[in-house]
Amino acid sequence: MRKNSILLIISVLFLTIACKNENEKQTEPIAVETEVTLTGPLPSWNEGKTKSAILDYVQDVTNSESNNFIPISERISTFDNDGNLWSEQPIYFQLSFVLDRIKEMAKEHPEWKNEQPFKAVLENDMETVMKSGMKGIGQLLMTTHAGNTTEEFDALVKDWISTAKHPTKNVGYDELVYQPMLELLAYLRANDFKTYIVSGGGVDFMRAFVSPVYGIPSEQIIGSRITTEFDYNDGNPRILRTPGIDFVDDKDGKPLNIQKIIGKKPVFSSGNSDGDLPMMQWAASNTHKSFMLYVHHTDAAREWAYDRDSHIGKLDKGLDQANKDGWTVIDMAKDWKVIYPFELTD
Amino acid sequence: MRKNSILLIISVLFLTIACKNENEKQTEPIAVETEVTLTGPLPSWNEGKTKSAILDYVQDVTNSESNNFIPISERISTFDNDGNLWSEQPIYFQLSFVLDRIKEMAKEHPEWKNEQPFKAVLENDMETVMKSGMKGIGQLLMTTHAGNTTEEFDALVKDWISTAKHPTKNVGYDELVYQPMLELLAYLRANDFKTYIVSGGGVDFMRAFVSPVYGIPSEQIIGSRITTEFDYNDGNPRILRTPGIDFVDDKDGKPLNIQKIIGKKPVFSSGNSDGDLPMMQWAASNTHKSFMLYVHHTDAAREWAYDRDSHIGKLDKGLDQANKDGWTVIDMAKDWKVIYPFELTD
Repeated sequence: MRKNSILLIISVLFLTIACKNENEKQTEPIAVETEVTLTGPLPSWNEGKTKSAILDYVQDVTNSESNNFIPISERISTFDNDGNLWSEQPIYFQLSFVLDRIKEMAKEHPEWKNEQPFKAVLENDMETVMKSGMKGIGQLLMTTHAGNTTEEFDALVKDWISTAKHPTKNVGYDELVYQPMLELLAYLRANDFKTYIVSGGGVDFMRAFVSPVYGIPSEQIIGSRITTEFDYNDGNPRILRTPGIDFVDDKDGKPLNIQKIIGKKPVFSSGNSDGDLPMMQWAASNTHKSFMLYVHHTDAAREWAYDRDSHIGKLDKGLDQANKDGWTVIDMAKDWKVIYPFELTD
Repeated sequence: MRKNSILLIISVLFLTIACKNENEKQTEPIAVETEVTLTGPLPSWNEGKTKSAILDYVQDVTNSESNNFIPISERISTFDNDGNLWSEQPIYFQLSFVLDRIKEMAKEHPEWKNEQPFKAVLENDMETVMKSGMKGIGQLLMTTHAGNTTEEFDALVKDWISTAKHPTKNVGYDELVYQPMLELLAYLRANDFKTYIVSGGGVDFMRAFVSPVYGIPSEQIIGSRITTEFDYNDGNPRILRTPGIDFVDDKDGKPLNIQKIIGKKPVFSSGNSDGDLPMMQWAASNTHKSFMLYVHHTDAAREWAYDRDSHIGKLDKGLDQANKDGWTVIDMAKDWKVIYPFELTD
């Protein structure tokens, strides 16, 4: 176990280097490769067919002697965020931000005490909040996400993420990222893959804090968006966030947004729900050898266990297609030595 | 003049290296820097205040000892395309594609001989085409741009660009790119700027051919878009281009799309028309020292001369603001030794 702990600590150092390089351009690619060789890639992954499948794929497509070699410019990898790079239970973390923000804003809205769906939020009555459906949740979303500038919203999210705690794990939400997936992102980047987030979550919400966490710059974060307007504002221009849905980056929206923004089909795609299935199907149709990776939440002890019947992160049709087409499915309980980075010091 | 010719030829080699690196990641940044030192940057630019302003800015903000130093991750540069990186007269080149494509498609549409606006296109009656206004031109645009898959459209544009000739210059449209701007793009990249196209032109039209021309990968090309749909197509998924406007990347649309897709404010912005003005204003409001560059078409002999009264690439309010706020304005006739790359061998 001692040797293992050292490997994990070295791995964190390696991740720090790799992330730094992604943000600041890889000026020392050789140094990164050396680290990989010394520590072995994916140290928080147990040996087995999942880890082997990933390593075999990357080694194959980056080998210029291989028939499956993929040029660097085509090495596009896309990752869902909620339930794939960080947890998503008991509610999407962005919804926790919404609820916390409503409580904060309520100080200036005494009328909300008697007005649904705000009343239910203030009374922590989640059943009524959920029953308010698309209309009620949409109203909460627009109340908290619109009516400000991009800079103001960015500051609100930064402030929230630096103080809010997860209700049961009792750590910051940004600590609930998956250590094995951080290693996978870094491993792909060390092999000259571009790593993208393609999430149903809000793009400006994610951009406020995930770049240093995942080592992914804002221009490689794709997500859902509300409408915006440009305001010249007498020479101090700003972008106003207005109450309307601009794009929902989920289901078919994922391959559509990938085409709109990247303009290349991914060769590596990773998700955890049926909402990711069209993105996986899109990657699977690449003429290059591609890799489809599903995270299966099987770990009730360390994280959560859910799939076909869950209302959050439902994985049903996706699991069927993964099994049918031989995509790689992570068995979280079996494949991952640790779930979160803070477990590394245990 | 002999020395000058050699410099220009070396510059082309340098451009080739720089473009290759942009597409395949800069694995040899030191080699590129050496080339810059040997040849001097921007060889097709005449000495003078425009060239000096560019060089002074880049040297200042990339100097880690300077108060104006900009971290690499923030070095975002955005370039309009039509009239800024290539010519746009007598009509936008994408419109030439539309007209040529209508003539090609007419073989299967005999009814178009009697149906406007198609009849006017087939009779080369540009006055009637233009008079058909947004409705008529919109119809031509959708007829040629929609009703196919992204792959099919890509192939159509590639086929067109490899054969079509400009009506008066009698060379391929992709030869009508500005040599001094190619050098500027390469110079910025050699100084670790990310170079983006942010154009009113269609994003999928541009992506079909501009990457090797400008050294800009598809994920750094931003433009207007028509609507799309994902079609699983029994396991051979495709993206269908449908007849609707998804986003117009012009005027206020430029800063809005920059925020949506890049999520960072540019520090260097280059355009040639009032349609680029909001993008320039957005860059001008950067807390980092920023650089706004307008191309002023002053060269009737070698290219075209037009500004305030032009219906294509009108530069009026933008010129006023550039003069008022001290932005850099390229006087094409005075500042550029050559316009197009093919003039280098003269």
